[in-house]
Amino acid sequence: MLLIAGADHEVGQSLGRLLQDVEARFGAELLSDLPCVNELVGHVERYRGKMLRPTLVLLSSMAVSGRTDLGDLRESAVVTATVCEMVHMATLVHDDILDGAAMRRRGATVNQLRGNETAVMLGDYLISHAYHLCSSLGRADISRAIARATNTVCEGELLQLSHREDWSLDERTYYEVIRRKTASLVGLCCELPTLLSHEPGARNGDGRVGEALFTFGEKLGIAFQIIDDLLDLSGDEGTVGKSLGRDLAKGKLTLPVIRYLDQADGDSAEAMLALLREGAAGGEQHPADDTVYARVCDALASSGALEQARGQAEELVAEARTLLSDTLPDSPARATLLAMAEQVVVRRY
Amino acid sequence: MLLIAGADHEVGQSLGRLLQDVEARFGAELLSDLPCVNELVGHVERYRGKMLRPTLVLLSSMAVSGRTDLGDLRESAVVTATVCEMVHMATLVHDDILDGAAMRRRGATVNQLRGNETAVMLGDYLISHAYHLCSSLGRADISRAIARATNTVCEGELLQLSHREDWSLDERTYYEVIRRKTASLVGLCCELPTLLSHEPGARNGDGRVGEALFTFGEKLGIAFQIIDDLLDLSGDEGTVGKSLGRDLAKGKLTLPVIRYLDQADGDSAEAMLALLREGAAGGEQHPADDTVYARVCDALASSGALEQARGQAEELVAEARTLLSDTLPDSPARATLLAMAEQVVVRRY
Repeated sequence: MLLIAGADHEVGQSLGRLLQDVEARFGAELLSDLPCVNELVGHVERYRGKMLRPTLVLLSSMAVSGRTDLGDLRESAVVTATVCEMVHMATLVHDDILDGAAMRRRGATVNQLRGNETAVMLGDYLISHAYHLCSSLGRADISRAIARATNTVCEGELLQLSHREDWSLDERTYYEVIRRKTASLVGLCCELPTLLSHEPGARNGDGRVGEALFTFGEKLGIAFQIIDDLLDLSGDEGTVGKSLGRDLAKGKLTLPVIRYLDQADGDSAEAMLALLREGAAGGEQHPADDTVYARVCDALASSGALEQARGQAEELVAEARTLLSDTLPDSPARATLLAMAEQVVVRRY
Repeated sequence: MLLIAGADHEVGQSLGRLLQDVEARFGAELLSDLPCVNELVGHVERYRGKMLRPTLVLLSSMAVSGRTDLGDLRESAVVTATVCEMVHMATLVHDDILDGAAMRRRGATVNQLRGNETAVMLGDYLISHAYHLCSSLGRADISRAIARATNTVCEGELLQLSHREDWSLDERTYYEVIRRKTASLVGLCCELPTLLSHEPGARNGDGRVGEALFTFGEKLGIAFQIIDDLLDLSGDEGTVGKSLGRDLAKGKLTLPVIRYLDQADGDSAEAMLALLREGAAGGEQHPADDTVYARVCDALASSGALEQARGQAEELVAEARTLLSDTLPDSPARATLLAMAEQVVVRRY
């Protein structure tokens, strides 16, 4: 789980217990009568990392209910937190196919170990069980909200794929991609507790709170993805725990590169484009040698483009924090959410 | 759509109109604000073939409601018929990755045209929208039934994958694979109308009818898959409209091969195993030359194994028909379902 520096002790204790419940639900939902399925699921469970999404559902539920034990929201919050983690896990498994990545959280990926085909089906198994678990709440409106978010996630991925090796990708489209593929689900995680605390179809008296929580999560999600993309360019593979330089190999332009190309003089821009083309020429199967990667990273660092991208993420987090402070009354849960938001931009993995 | 010889005129007319509604819902649900997504969806819509699953939902709804216009069941039957077709479409898109198939319904597959990665995401987009559309019914119990079926479909696919190049695959496991990966959804298609005609959670007075309809569909689905597997071995590529011999290239044993290996003398079995190994050696990327495929097919045909497998499918269809006749009162819709069942085993594509 994400260690939250400065979390309130009671909030931290309760969060730890609730996340254990999430893990137990996760395992129980995926249990099959087929040993071959359980073996694969066991492998995926080792992917479990920051638990960002369930943590957001749970903290937001504490903030909305005003109770660290979540009160009446407990059951539905734990279930939806598990659902969001399962959806996220599915996208990781399928993303590894997309990115041809060989390493994830310091372990070999499913596609590496067992082939693309097993990874596709295992991801489908996770998605299917996410919807299955969600429907156990008996709330079709919640199932619909989850499915709407996954529709958007897929659109973001498809939009990104359609811009592979698009060397003139603009910043607006980059933001549109990450808003859909990452931020839509993170936003929903934060909004879910307000949906859960109302009867389906009832006039939502807290519409303003729900909207603000969604936007808080959305901004956080965008910032999170900017940092993720930064780490792919400038992180330390051992610390990050997954293959780096994949965006380069895949011809995916991310914020620092877009900024660099926007601001560089003609010759520097041409030189960068040549490196990008070389970096992507072999695709994921035959990545360019490390010097191409190093030269791209050096140019981005010395131009200040990396820091500009980090600055954008910091700005988004600051906006998210202000929005949350303006919307929710002060509470230990709110303080923990604010602290968590800050850590999104300082993380090194 | 599946042309049903001997369908009652009024049933046929109503079915045609309802299937048009299904197609319209299908398109409306998948419409995106992103042109790149709509272009991909347009490609998938050309996959649409037999419409077996929506046809079963609609005919079963007619039989259960006793009305060719479906009465109160109309809206929910059209929605769930669309959902089932969308789930099926998603499995086709993902199956093409599984099988490395280059041709489907006389057109290039998505993975062939746009790469595995786009095919994975497009399949995910279809699955997500299927659950999204389903939840519009406001019936969490129906969402759960659909998700339970897709859980089972994925298990079947994973079980099959775990038995790739398992040259001692037994008949029991083969049936378990196709029961899960194909028959579970077909069974649900037939059962859905009885679930829809009852309030969620209400004591189901027609439990016996629902169960019988599920079993009818399950037997039909198993027979359908046996024939599908037979066509992969002995069909005509131009007529079937998709790449053949893929099971061989993938090391997937199907019923005729299992029967042959069970019954052949030691030398013939060894010769067959050698051919199977040779056929699978290059995998999907480098299929063995056509003579290997031809020699396998010849051996299966002359041993009677192909006919035995067809006989199994015919037996299952006969059982399904008897069950339906014993359960539902006579009606034009029932007669059409019975006629449809018969066509599953005589189809050549």
